[in-house]
Amino acid sequence: MAAEPRERPGVRGAVSRRRLLIGGAVAAGGVAAGGAVAVTLTDRAATPQAGEPLGTAGEPLATAGEPRTTAGEPRTTAGEPLATIPAGQVVPFHGDHQAGVATPPQAHAAFLAFTLMPSTTREGLARLLKLLTDDARRLTQGRPALADTEPGLAELPGNLTVTFGLGPGAMRAAALPRLRPLPRFTIDRLQERWSGGDLLVQLCCDDPVTLAHAQRMIVKDTRSFAKLAWVQKGFRQATQRPGLTQRNLMGQLDGTVNPQPGTPGFDRAVWIGDGPLRGGTMLVLRRIRMHLDRWDAADSAAKEFTVGRRLDTGAPLTGTHEHDEPDYGRLTELGFPVIADEAHIRRAHVADPGLRMLRRAYNYDDGPDDIGLLFAAYQADVETQFTAVQRRLAEVDLLNEWTTPVGSAVFYLPPGCGEGGWIGERLLT
Amino acid sequence: MAAEPRERPGVRGAVSRRRLLIGGAVAAGGVAAGGAVAVTLTDRAATPQAGEPLGTAGEPLATAGEPRTTAGEPRTTAGEPLATIPAGQVVPFHGDHQAGVATPPQAHAAFLAFTLMPSTTREGLARLLKLLTDDARRLTQGRPALADTEPGLAELPGNLTVTFGLGPGAMRAAALPRLRPLPRFTIDRLQERWSGGDLLVQLCCDDPVTLAHAQRMIVKDTRSFAKLAWVQKGFRQATQRPGLTQRNLMGQLDGTVNPQPGTPGFDRAVWIGDGPLRGGTMLVLRRIRMHLDRWDAADSAAKEFTVGRRLDTGAPLTGTHEHDEPDYGRLTELGFPVIADEAHIRRAHVADPGLRMLRRAYNYDDGPDDIGLLFAAYQADVETQFTAVQRRLAEVDLLNEWTTPVGSAVFYLPPGCGEGGWIGERLLT
Ligand code: HEM
Ligand code: HEM
Repeated sequence: MAAEPRERPGVRGAVSRRRLLIGGAVAAGGVAAGGAVAVTLTDRAATPQAGEPLGTAGEPLATAGEPRTTAGEPRTTAGEPLATIPAGQVVPFHGDHQAGVATPPQAHAAFLAFTLMPSTTREGLARLLKLLTDDARRLTQGRPALADTEPGLAELPGNLTVTFGLGPGAMRAAALPRLRPLPRFTIDRLQERWSGGDLLVQLCCDDPVTLAHAQRMIVKDTRSFAKLAWVQKGFRQATQRPGLTQRNLMGQLDGTVNPQPGTPGFDRAVWIGDGPLRGGTMLVLRRIRMHLDRWDAADSAAKEFTVGRRLDTGAPLTGTHEHDEPDYGRLTELGFPVIADEAHIRRAHVADPGLRMLRRAYNYDDGPDDIGLLFAAYQADVETQFTAVQRRLAEVDLLNEWTTPVGSAVFYLPPGCGEGGWIGERLLT
Repeated sequence: MAAEPRERPGVRGAVSRRRLLIGGAVAAGGVAAGGAVAVTLTDRAATPQAGEPLGTAGEPLATAGEPRTTAGEPRTTAGEPLATIPAGQVVPFHGDHQAGVATPPQAHAAFLAFTLMPSTTREGLARLLKLLTDDARRLTQGRPALADTEPGLAELPGNLTVTFGLGPGAMRAAALPRLRPLPRFTIDRLQERWSGGDLLVQLCCDDPVTLAHAQRMIVKDTRSFAKLAWVQKGFRQATQRPGLTQRNLMGQLDGTVNPQPGTPGFDRAVWIGDGPLRGGTMLVLRRIRMHLDRWDAADSAAKEFTVGRRLDTGAPLTGTHEHDEPDYGRLTELGFPVIADEAHIRRAHVADPGLRMLRRAYNYDDGPDDIGLLFAAYQADVETQFTAVQRRLAEVDLLNEWTTPVGSAVFYLPPGCGEGGWIGERLLT
């Protein structure tokens, strides 16, 4: 007895805690034993990169085939160095759009929010953005910032991206188009200390030391213009299995259904198409705490039922591979939907690829009582993309049982710039 | 006019602030432009590793030559994935010594200290260590812990090591040999919240998600025995240039002169040779805050004068390459030592390789006002190794101007164990 797959998932009946705990017809997930290890790395040596990461005294950073050891550091008993990721990876800074959005997520992120001095004028904001653009242009390419006090820490770009955004207050101060604040959602338990902000600087990098240095340079250069309101640091899996998406701290593969740069709908979904804000995007950043002790108490069937996907493979409960299309119409023998009406993926699903938000989330761990997800979503229009989905989720979503939004912020991310330009130029001149 | 190199560096005269600021005959350091990028990674695919990191459903983690992309995640404009480090890297758990000491430092570390319940007996401590050894044995090899609630998060070992230590209180409670506490040093400004502890669990890993998961499992399994006293998280450069040592957040190459596993003196320096504690080592962990705003105000000549090494190459001020032997006797034309009497490396130098401590430090960044170094030193004997050097440094060391120890702890790390054994077995049975 199979029903027609529905285009838009709907809700049928209220959440039944018992069904949740029984978990329907879902086999318990788990990790099978065995499996050989065979990992290679794509050798990027042959691919010249943009920018010029600097060796000391003009020496190349490495010669192909040279072992990647650090002299003077302990080695394994066998004397072999542990592997590290390439030092010289560079993400281009210039372009139509800012980097750090369509860029594949790096292992580490720091989201910094600043409160502008009350006296800040439109000209002052422009001056600040010019200064920070210059820092970003250099640091992302492995070059020291202009007044860099530790040039050595800028040498390993590690795919650093620096992305700027303006909050509602800054837009107002600079007489720019108004940003609509997010509505309040019933599930929210927002704290000031993780919310709002006038200026966002998003730093993403595969090297935590490079990131820490870039962060310091940025914080120093904003000092006379703005006050640091909050810093939220996140991380993703630095080691990965090909073909598998990032896992979050609930153990789920997170990011499966996500707009892909270069595919139909991506540009429409992510970049603002016209008007004064065109070429930019809107970031919604939500700090969502996970109640992991409670989550631990659920068995895997219940966990999979909650999301509508398997824990091991990330496949929908109606499929076998991660990227199998979920069959939202399929029913169990007892006549219940296999992917529950209240399951996270059914409630969050958006059929039109041009209306999906781009999720680029980071995990955070700020002590045993504050673990969760820095949910970062990028889209052309907050109201029809993030907010539409969040409204549905706030209404019904089994995941709400284990997660609580504790921080929230919205920023407009201006378009990118060329070699002589700066971020925000078109808006502020 | 060259003087004989002195075997042990001494002090001559008091610190002259002027000389410090002038910086002697040292050319200002900096980063030269140019230099091609060419980086390869050691392909570990051919090297079978100990343990069995598990693929899902018995699938190999990757096949040689397969691109290391994550489907469903954004890519660069060119569609290329950003590089990541190998997923299946495993550091063996079993051995004469615990891993995580002579192991090349992974990119991330978390040092956890627990306070044992006052009622803890020797038998209770043994039970706890058995339980935690089992967790460590599994998690380090990419296998879920016994009661693992998120087995998926154990799949990517990322060189995880889990290392256990006992503080003075635990040694006393279990009627084990007494550990002498560190003396007070005049430079110390220690805070309770970063100091002491009965049980140490040191987690090091190249993947921050694997680390966060292992940390949760360990914290959960200690709950009925102990209270979490503090967590200190640190990081190192995840991307590296071959032949160059790790940089700390002052921008210095940190770890140049360090005992090398397999070289003469290493075993004597690091592992306790006889008595009931033989096969183990002593960890001194110092949280040392850096006053970076003040440090920024110094120019590179002054910075290099402080340490006695160059910022760019890490070479001693008397040499050109990082691993050149410092010439402590060399004088400037004005008759002053090129490497100042108060320079950090002269004050810290220990001539006998068998008496050096193994430094395996991590950077930390807990907000703009709390940045520094988790100085972790491992040695056979604290008194003659760490303490002897720290006494000299507390007395005179130009670096003291910019650093302050704010946390301090000492632990005995028992020897390793075999397949059926557990850490602490010989001591506690
Ligand atoms: C801690 C909170 C959250 C967790 C742990 C979480 C987890 C997941 C997981 C495991 C999936 C399935 C795999 C995938 O496609 O990525 C998913 C899908 C999705 N989530 Fe979330 N999520 C969270 C919050 C949110 C929020 C706040 C939103 C938006 C308001 C959201 C929107 C989506 C969307 C649009 C999908 C794809 C649905 C589809 O079309 O299949 N999620 N999430
Ligand atoms: C934040 C605090 C510290 C910083 C930034 C720092 C930095 C450095 C640097 C840059 C070097 C030269 C490169 C190298 O050989 O590693 C060095 C060497 C050394 N440091 Fe430190 N250090 C710090 C604290 C300490 C402490 C507390 C001790 C021990 C009590 C110590 C012991 C040593 C030793 C033994 C050497 C090698 C000296 C030699 O034989 O050449 N350091 N340190």
